[in-house]
Amino acid sequence: MEKDEITKLLEEKKYNVLKEKLKEINSADIPPLLEELDKESVVKLFRILPKEQAGEAFSYMEPYMKEKLIQDLTDAELKGILNELFMDDTVDLIEEMPSNVVKKILKVVNAKDRKIINELLQYPEDSAGSIMTTEFIDLKETMTVEQALQRIRDIGIDSETIYNCYVLNRNRVLLGMINIKEILISKKEQIIKELMTTNVISVNTLEDQEDVAKLFDKYDMYALPVVDTENRLVGIITVDDAINVLQDETAEDFEKMAAMSPNEKGYFETSVFKHAKNRIVWLLVLMLSSAITGGIITNYEEAFAAVPLLVAFIPMIMGTGGNCGSQSSTLIIRGLATDEIELKDLFKALWKEFRVSIIVGVVLAIVNGIRIMIQYNDLQLAIVIGLTLIATVALSKALGCLLPMFAKKLKLDPAIMATPLITTLVDIFSILVYFQIATAIMHI
Amino acid sequence: MEKDEITKLLEEKKYNVLKEKLKEINSADIPPLLEELDKESVVKLFRILPKEQAGEAFSYMEPYMKEKLIQDLTDAELKGILNELFMDDTVDLIEEMPSNVVKKILKVVNAKDRKIINELLQYPEDSAGSIMTTEFIDLKETMTVEQALQRIRDIGIDSETIYNCYVLNRNRVLLGMINIKEILISKKEQIIKELMTTNVISVNTLEDQEDVAKLFDKYDMYALPVVDTENRLVGIITVDDAINVLQDETAEDFEKMAAMSPNEKGYFETSVFKHAKNRIVWLLVLMLSSAITGGIITNYEEAFAAVPLLVAFIPMIMGTGGNCGSQSSTLIIRGLATDEIELKDLFKALWKEFRVSIIVGVVLAIVNGIRIMIQYNDLQLAIVIGLTLIATVALSKALGCLLPMFAKKLKLDPAIMATPLITTLVDIFSILVYFQIATAIMHI
Repeated sequence: MEKDEITKLLEEKKYNVLKEKLKEINSADIPPLLEELDKESVVKLFRILPKEQAGEAFSYMEPYMKEKLIQDLTDAELKGILNELFMDDTVDLIEEMPSNVVKKILKVVNAKDRKIINELLQYPEDSAGSIMTTEFIDLKETMTVEQALQRIRDIGIDSETIYNCYVLNRNRVLLGMINIKEILISKKEQIIKELMTTNVISVNTLEDQEDVAKLFDKYDMYALPVVDTENRLVGIITVDDAINVLQDETAEDFEKMAAMSPNEKGYFETSVFKHAKNRIVWLLVLMLSSAITGGIITNYEEAFAAVPLLVAFIPMIMGTGGNCGSQSSTLIIRGLATDEIELKDLFKALWKEFRVSIIVGVVLAIVNGIRIMIQYNDLQLAIVIGLTLIATVALSKALGCLLPMFAKKLKLDPAIMATPLITTLVDIFSILVYFQIATAIMHI
Repeated sequence: MEKDEITKLLEEKKYNVLKEKLKEINSADIPPLLEELDKESVVKLFRILPKEQAGEAFSYMEPYMKEKLIQDLTDAELKGILNELFMDDTVDLIEEMPSNVVKKILKVVNAKDRKIINELLQYPEDSAGSIMTTEFIDLKETMTVEQALQRIRDIGIDSETIYNCYVLNRNRVLLGMINIKEILISKKEQIIKELMTTNVISVNTLEDQEDVAKLFDKYDMYALPVVDTENRLVGIITVDDAINVLQDETAEDFEKMAAMSPNEKGYFETSVFKHAKNRIVWLLVLMLSSAITGGIITNYEEAFAAVPLLVAFIPMIMGTGGNCGSQSSTLIIRGLATDEIELKDLFKALWKEFRVSIIVGVVLAIVNGIRIMIQYNDLQLAIVIGLTLIATVALSKALGCLLPMFAKKLKLDPAIMATPLITTLVDIFSILVYFQIATAIMHI
């Protein structure tokens, strides 16, 4: 559906036609549509949407759009939207909005929901509690399949997913789980206790959201129960939220690995100043660190005064070292992030990197040696550069492997030990090695 | 459960105790357990597992383990396992195994399944068809809710998910979709046609798997129907497979962005030679490209013979340029990957990067100028380095923004235009700018 078509239907007040057309659009596609309309049309169109679709569309909106819309809606309309949202989305909304909007939201929320919201807001950022929702299907052990189905029919419409149902005792302690498939294919008179699985994977409310998301990847689940310290079920996390966490954490890793502070907003939504701020800290640190490399070079002024060609190979040696280090650190950082590599694998990984670096170093040295012989016909230079390359590759691959593991050991995020930092460190060592080898072999 | 406990129970032939204990373990946790046992115990333990758990555990195994196990199982046992697997897992298995194992597999598969397998094997790698499964719930428009529930009970046990049910006409053309929640909360006598939604998001069998996975992220789905060119439903993709695709594509992006050929196997499973091979091509290309930078430096021999200190700043200028370029290219590459940035945004992004680079460049120039004044008390040098930094930052951020977009325009993967390549290119330009500015201002 195009902007012009919508505007035309709105102008002609053909609301019923518009309503029918909107029904054919997926809720996730409504916000991009609204973004093209003027303010007045947005509210009009939003009012036309069926309740459920309006709620869904709202949950897909960017924060700034939600804010504008809330300010234009009446209290009754806002209440209608909030009723359609799941608790986790309501809490996200409150966390994103400025305080005047939050006031307006809390005013229309009923007392019971306000209590739940307050509880959810207590959980630390990035914890399982902060991304869970409180709408799930709870069953009792003693129920028959028929009673369970009735319970699902009664509360299913308000539950985020009915795929997994959780069996609780009277103190709401999680006893087991049963999925809707098993309920449906079982006989009406069978007892839930006999059908449920007691081997339930659950997480504590304070568990880190990234670890939670990894469980979804590992166990192929649709939903994960969240329990408190007394094993009482307090919420569930659904797979769509887990995917969002995985995507956010990936974006964060990419940013950290390129020496930037992680940023929650999108590229274009972030202001120029914020962008500059996110990038400048690491740039300054790295720039000042590279003064060390400069200092080393100053010490060898005599060497390159005698053989000026030595300077011409600095970029190649630094570049190759940086690239080798970044290859290794990327593989190790990713391996640590996906739990494929653990701290105890340190020596196994180092040994692997060492063997790889010998092969790579020798091949690079030979290719470069041939180039130098063709271009300058200088065997001594070819040997100096060749040995430097082998040493630099070995050293940079070792650093690329060691530093992320070291960060992990210190409980820091290994992603900070990525290309930029590794490159700067490798520069220092490679230049030192280079001039040492050059002065030794060339007797300068 | 520990290795020793299992070995002991196996030795004492306490198979029933072991069976009960194994039931408490999630199927995804069985393969790591098996890995610690000797070959004989693996087969024994696997035979003890209940059919369903054995099938699930099998689907979580690494290829080499599946291969060993298949060779040790009887035909009847293998058939039992294959019956428990969903079609997509069977096809994955066949694609992973060497030809003698594939022969053994196909021998025990019945003719009907063999036909489906052959069809699924035809789909190109990385297409929707290659990751879909053929077990889903199909309903007819004319069915009542009661009939639909009966159909779900009849075929649900063999279906990978019963959450979404698909409504087909007699030619198996996809007409609509209804989820189990709606079926359960509707009255028995209601007709599916009136309840189903006709606004179904589906993909073609040839759609790229990465685009498919992104749809899951965008629309928060549990399953996605896959149709052929005549809109006939041929399979579904479930959210767990979408998560795997997202994770694999992320790993691939990380590898490409660190100048490595993507690798499907894990870090430790990949041989040293394969690792070296994956890394060496780009290293050679980049190493030889950096000879250009070296060549430029050679042209300015007189300049640094006159002012040797100029050489000492080469690492800082190259490093800062590389880091700035890698920041911008990472943001643009990620933005393009998540569809947040599109080709039409080129000038918008360039303008943003330009403003960021001015702020960043000026700050870096000032900080560095202060350092130079303190360390060398040389205003001319501070100005040369300051101007070079501003120009380098602007240039590298522009390149970091332009090149990934250019790759996208040429339908290449923007991830190849990442840190290593950008750094090498930035080196060339920044050295050129540096010596131009230096010779002009210092009159050398």
